[in-house]
Amino acid sequence: MDVLVTLASPGEADITPALTLRDIGSFFVGGQTVETADAAVEQHVLARNGVPVRIDPNGTTWLGQMYVQYAIPAVSARLPVLFWHGGSLTGVTWETTPDGRQGWFNQFLRLGWPCYNVDAVERGRSGWAPRDPHFAAPAMLRTWQDSFTQFRIGRPVRDGSLASLAAAAYPNCRFPLDAFGAFMRQVVPRWSTTDDLAVDAYCRLLEQVGPAIIVAHSQGGAFAFRAAERCPGQVAAIVAIEPAQGGTTDGAALAGIPVLAVYGDHLNLDARWPTIRARTEHYFAAARAAGACIEVLDLPLQGIHGNSHMLMMERNNADIALLIHDWLQKRLPVRPDQEDPTHA
Amino acid sequence: MDVLVTLASPGEADITPALTLRDIGSFFVGGQTVETADAAVEQHVLARNGVPVRIDPNGTTWLGQMYVQYAIPAVSARLPVLFWHGGSLTGVTWETTPDGRQGWFNQFLRLGWPCYNVDAVERGRSGWAPRDPHFAAPAMLRTWQDSFTQFRIGRPVRDGSLASLAAAAYPNCRFPLDAFGAFMRQVVPRWSTTDDLAVDAYCRLLEQVGPAIIVAHSQGGAFAFRAAERCPGQVAAIVAIEPAQGGTTDGAALAGIPVLAVYGDHLNLDARWPTIRARTEHYFAAARAAGACIEVLDLPLQGIHGNSHMLMMERNNADIALLIHDWLQKRLPVRPDQEDPTHA
Repeated sequence: MDVLVTLASPGEADITPALTLRDIGSFFVGGQTVETADAAVEQHVLARNGVPVRIDPNGTTWLGQMYVQYAIPAVSARLPVLFWHGGSLTGVTWETTPDGRQGWFNQFLRLGWPCYNVDAVERGRSGWAPRDPHFAAPAMLRTWQDSFTQFRIGRPVRDGSLASLAAAAYPNCRFPLDAFGAFMRQVVPRWSTTDDLAVDAYCRLLEQVGPAIIVAHSQGGAFAFRAAERCPGQVAAIVAIEPAQGGTTDGAALAGIPVLAVYGDHLNLDARWPTIRARTEHYFAAARAAGACIEVLDLPLQGIHGNSHMLMMERNNADIALLIHDWLQKRLPVRPDQEDPTHA
Repeated sequence: MDVLVTLASPGEADITPALTLRDIGSFFVGGQTVETADAAVEQHVLARNGVPVRIDPNGTTWLGQMYVQYAIPAVSARLPVLFWHGGSLTGVTWETTPDGRQGWFNQFLRLGWPCYNVDAVERGRSGWAPRDPHFAAPAMLRTWQDSFTQFRIGRPVRDGSLASLAAAAYPNCRFPLDAFGAFMRQVVPRWSTTDDLAVDAYCRLLEQVGPAIIVAHSQGGAFAFRAAERCPGQVAAIVAIEPAQGGTTDGAALAGIPVLAVYGDHLNLDARWPTIRARTEHYFAAARAAGACIEVLDLPLQGIHGNSHMLMMERNNADIALLIHDWLQKRLPVRPDQEDPTHA
């Protein structure tokens, strides 16, 4: 099956103009300290023939911290864009696509937005807490077959060969199928018991770098609505890419926050997505009744067909990024230092 | 204890000149596919009041893949530098320091080196495989107290208060103690059963981007020697920061590869480090007898006192980066396009 794996590397990347950045870097937000006592001290050999080490699990550890990586254009008066990935995934979602093209992190950066990319609590570089009850259930890892349908790329497949994937893909498929195996390397274990920790950390991030624009995918979309309900003053706009859920209130807190929900194609061919979207639209209706301005960008209704749930990495990802960039330009108030210099 | 947490953010970062980059991005290397059959299908609700989802664990998953993030200077004729972190940690080791200063990734980038930063197999964005026997043992997570001594910052402490840390710190401590709590957010769960998977993935990385310089820390140093033994032609130099071990052969394969081992201070005050260093020096002696050129930079012997095991993030990290940069300049063959233009 290794024939499917397309390695993306800088040498294969698109030829693009140089990036001039003020800085790149990372930091952590949120989390709480937990004290462990009365656990048995362990003795480990951490490598073949290594010097034995005594590891005492008693003491202080973190729970619920979140990793944030950023890149800031050298010259930018724009608000920060925060990228919040979806379930089973990490911030890699927004980076180089599995077939080696520019992802949305770079595309928004090149459009002049300061960009912040996180790994949600429990995922990636944010780490997790093996002894904590939040992580008592076994972690789940999605298979290639499960992901192919759950991410709505196509009908069920028996194996990951390119022939099988191509035969099962939905019409006008935009996903780079020859890099589906490479994409699956991004998929990491997850739990279903850490949502509250995640929302806490997202609110801490908003407090630190907001007001900011949230570009959120799937599970991240649900977190975006919940975080905006808690700290609306720190949210300048929400772009929810196929959000998995709405928030947990009547959405009145969204009044004054421009919201764009973006949907790909073939929702009606999936077992769960019609229900998921209907529930989210129900939340939107309540929020609109309470004064919120929520717009829906249904890509097939715009003549853009064949996008899956993973539209930020599909062949037309740059086109969709530009649609979102244009919407942000229209909906965000223009600050004096952002006015078009050609009219100054 | 939250008083200890210093949040690093771009606003607090050093004022530094703009970075001009050809590109930033990421990719994965290595790994193998694993097929699961006859496991029970699970039903999950992945969020509060979420639409139930059937998760079938049968099918194809990855094992042993590795995440690689890169930043390439706009103009550079230098060889790539690969950063390989140590145990319990991820690539965050080399990024912004816990107290918000530039880390080695940025410092080497600003010195003109194309930089590649990985999360080792099992860590961070590389993910792990919950059902695979490699991950059958419980994951270990180091405490603040354990890390403070294991990373050789000071003597045992009972709690993480700044007063306790400062009282226990070794003389001339270079670690930013007020950011020790922030540093501990980087610490992630680990296993002791995935070394072979890690070395496989590191060799795949070398095959893809080598010949390259490896800058490796602790456990990563052991992986560097093992990877160099397997693919010496892809390794231009090794800088081993307090390596946890040597390789697993007589080291003859290192002949022709300049090696620099760097050690901090206070090894003699630690229970394990004298043994660890002696074993590694034994490996070096064998490799030298077989023709290798291995140099040791013992920082205290150079008058640089007080560095711990985490010297890449200590207050003098920029000075140590420059020592390594200068050593690389001297030991690597100069290519015509790298010659000093002022003498052209």
